[in-house]
Formats: sequence, C-alpha cells, structure tokens
Amino acid sequence: MSDAIRITGATRLYPIIGDPIAQVRSPEVFSARFAAAGTPAVCIPVHVPSERFETIVPELMALGNVDGLIATVPFKPRMLRFADRLGRAAQTVGALNALRREADGSWTGDMFDGMGFVHGAKSKGERLAERRVQLFGAGGAGSAIACGLAEAGVKSIGVIDQDVAKAQALVDKLTRAFPNCDVSVTREMPAAIDMVVNASPVGMKPGDGLPGDIGRLDPGTLVGDVVILTGPSPMIRHAIECGCRYVDGREMMDGQVDALLAFFADVARPR
Amino acid sequence: MSDAIRITGATRLYPIIGDPIAQVRSPEVFSARFAAAGTPAVCIPVHVPSERFETIVPELMALGNVDGLIATVPFKPRMLRFADRLGRAAQTVGALNALRREADGSWTGDMFDGMGFVHGAKSKGERLAERRVQLFGAGGAGSAIACGLAEAGVKSIGVIDQDVAKAQALVDKLTRAFPNCDVSVTREMPAAIDMVVNASPVGMKPGDGLPGDIGRLDPGTLVGDVVILTGPSPMIRHAIECGCRYVDGREMMDGQVDALLAFFADVARPR
Repeated sequence: MSDAIRITGATRLYPIIGDPIAQVRSPEVFSARFAAAGTPAVCIPVHVPSERFETIVPELMALGNVDGLIATVPFKPRMLRFADRLGRAAQTVGALNALRREADGSWTGDMFDGMGFVHGAKSKGERLAERRVQLFGAGGAGSAIACGLAEAGVKSIGVIDQDVAKAQALVDKLTRAFPNCDVSVTREMPAAIDMVVNASPVGMKPGDGLPGDIGRLDPGTLVGDVVILTGPSPMIRHAIECGCRYVDGREMMDGQVDALLAFFADVARPR
Repeated sequence: MSDAIRITGATRLYPIIGDPIAQVRSPEVFSARFAAAGTPAVCIPVHVPSERFETIVPELMALGNVDGLIATVPFKPRMLRFADRLGRAAQTVGALNALRREADGSWTGDMFDGMGFVHGAKSKGERLAERRVQLFGAGGAGSAIACGLAEAGVKSIGVIDQDVAKAQALVDKLTRAFPNCDVSVTREMPAAIDMVVNASPVGMKPGDGLPGDIGRLDPGTLVGDVVILTGPSPMIRHAIECGCRYVDGREMMDGQVDALLAFFADVARPR
C-alpha cells in the first residue's frame, strides 16, 4: 500500500458521490489500492448537492474516463434508476452503492454494504452457512447485511428494530428473495442463535451500550458490528468478554473494499 | 515537488476538461504543485465527449467540491458562456482556459495561454515593454500570446498566418482592445523587430523547419516557441545559433502553470 498515487491525463476515475462528502474514507482507501495494484485509476470525492442529484448523475456517467461510481448517503436508493441491470442484493434491498460501466457501455449496479460483512467473516475463516442469526437494525446497513447473509446460506434471520413496520418490510422482502432462509421479526433475542449482528447505530455515541437485551453469549456465537470506533465498540467488547469470535466495523469495511474492487475489475472479463 | 499526492473525502477538485484528454499533462503538474504547497486539492482529467459539452459543464460546476475548471481543446471558445465575468485576455481572444468559483458562487474566467509566455519571459529576466514583435500563427495560441504581449506593453505586433483573413481578424480584435499597441498583418518579416514568436504548429513534425523566412537574427532578439519537443525545436535551435535568448515551449507551459495557480488562489482574497 506504499505505492504513490499518480494522476495523469490517462487516469481512470471512480467518483464516490454523497452529500456531504468530506467524511468519506473511500478516496484514500481505493486510490491506495489502485496504486498498489498498478491500476491507473483513482477514487475521487464528488460532492453532489442532493437537489441536483438527478441531473448530475447522468452527466457523470457520460464522462469518457469514468469507469464506475460509488454512492453513499443519501443516494443509495436513488441510484437504482441509473442501472441497466441489478445484482440480487441491490434488487432485494432496493438500493445500490456501486455502478460499473460494462464493455458495451451499459451499467451494472449492486449493493455491497452487506458483502463487507460476508467477505470480512470469510477472510477470518468463519463459516456462515446454516447459522441462526439475530440481527439488530432493519435500516440500510441491516437490510444489506441480511441480504448478504441470506445469500451466504444462513439458516435463519431474526430481525429486531424499534420500528416494527420497518423490520416487517425487510422480512417480507427477504422472504420473497430467499425462500430457503427462515426470516422473521423478533421482539427479543431467542436462545437458539449462533450469530448476532448489530447493524443499528447503537454503540456510536459515547455512553451507548448494547443494541438490545443480549445477555451472556455462548462462545460459539459469531458477533458482528457495523459501528466503527477507535477502540472496540460496546458490542465487540461484549463479544470479547464472552469469548466469542467477531467481525468489527473496520473489518467489515475492509471486506467491502475487497468486494467492490472485485466487482469493478470483473468488467474486463467476458460475461 | 516531492510531496506525495493524497486524495481524501475533503479534497477539492480542479477538473481539466477536453476531448480527447489522455494526452494532457495538467493533472500531474497541478496535483504535484498543490501537494507541494500543502493545498488539499487535485487536478483530475475529465473526458467530456464534445457532443455532451453543453449539458455536462453546468453539472460539473454544480459539484460542491469543484473550485475551478481548466479547459483544453476543443472547448476553450465554448467555455465563454459559462463565465459570469471575463478577464481582458478572454474577452479579446474570445476563449478561456480557466474558470474559478468566487466566494459568492459566481464564476470568473480568463485565458492564460498567452500569460505562460509572459510569465516565462519575465521569470528569465526578459523585458517585454517596447519590444517590436513578429508573431507566426493567428490561431488559439497565437491570439492568446498576442493578447498577453499587448497587455505586457510591447510596442508593435506583426502577425503572419497562412490564413490572411484569420490574421486580419486577430489584428482587428487586438487593435480594438489595445489601441496603444501597433498591430498589423505582415506578409513577411520586417527588419526592425527585436522579438520573434512562433505560435504556429510548424516545428512539431519531424522534418519541420522554421515557420517562415526568418533569416539571421540579431543577438538582441528575444525568441519564443510554443512547440514542445524532447530536444530544442527548429525555432529554438535557430535562436541558439544566432546567439539569441529564448523562451521555449516548456518554459511557456511552466509560466502558464504559475499564472493559473495564482488565478485560482486569488479567489480567497476579497475582491
């Protein structure tokens, strides 16, 4: 990752679009990965004012040296209309965070927010198939992670969200997309689970505790948390205290970078 | 110039737009200069397909982290309409190559193709005021250079171009803008000159000679050439043989970078 970033006239662009944009880490992370791989490309921050989103995006897609786009808050659901085809995660979640230009000029979109957890877990040698999952949070991150887990073959997913209607909507979507996965709204955490994932914002603020009444976990339980802090989050601290293995927010983000780079690179291969 | 280029979420953007774009040097040159100055900004190549120019440019200008635009072939004349105000060079030449966002959100444009020569000459300690100039080429580069020289106070400019109507049009524009400068179309080089500038493409192709019948030059003659080759161009070789001082294409380009950076930086000061 020590290779210097170069920008020449021939550099290819992967803009990340958001509003605001200054907080995103992708330009640094992806540009370093492109440089390390010898790919003549950079990821650039592009601040798209929300009210101009619909007119700006088609023009960005028309630029001759833009090969892909990354979308962050608040644009992930609004990006759907710009894809000519969608991966299963984007279809199920109703949002996408990556769009790539194919050799024929058409655009393929998919949602990688959930793949980060799957990639992260797999890179730590964790088995996901047949797990019985308890998920906290049915928002954008929770939806994407649930979808990634269902695709990875987990046996069941229980969804808890303060907004029960939101939890139910996610359960309905997952049930349609993944009929072999047993998905349901849960009010409290059942005993027979072997995986807990926090996809809620609980844990971000100082003084936050756990996202629900989790209790002591069996050491065989795999724990995941989207929260990124400089030290371990409350959820990850709890996992450590119970002797559980875990995937933390930063590992999820690294996993998502791997998944996104593989998606962008895949365009070169005949499809 | 050894400072590493970084791209973060907070990086400000200066796109250079052109069609084609892969050949431009600005992204490398300006990004290195921004990095060396500790300015959190990069210059990125943006390939704007010519037929989408009118719809793409307003959207690029609407991006929240774009502070300025650089334009290259074929967009310099077509950029005029996007400026709220124009510097004298842009007005006279009828084209601009730089546009900056002011603190109030309005846009100021100007043409720096000619400033490069003026900056380059001054940085080599050359006096321009009162010079009697012979200029070869009345195209975009020639127009901009003539305008820069008139602004710098030269006494006279004779313009030679194969296309006499083009030369006459430039003379008419310069005469209106700079009534104190004696501008005329010339068919051949007069004896009483002390500066010769080649702004034609002659010298770029292997086997090219001088842009006209120049003959032996007095050593007091200052020579300029827009042509950039790895070695000296025919015009610069001739200057060296005649013992003349000169400003070559690369020095003009360096001078233009200085002038452009000063223009972009000037926005911070109250106007």
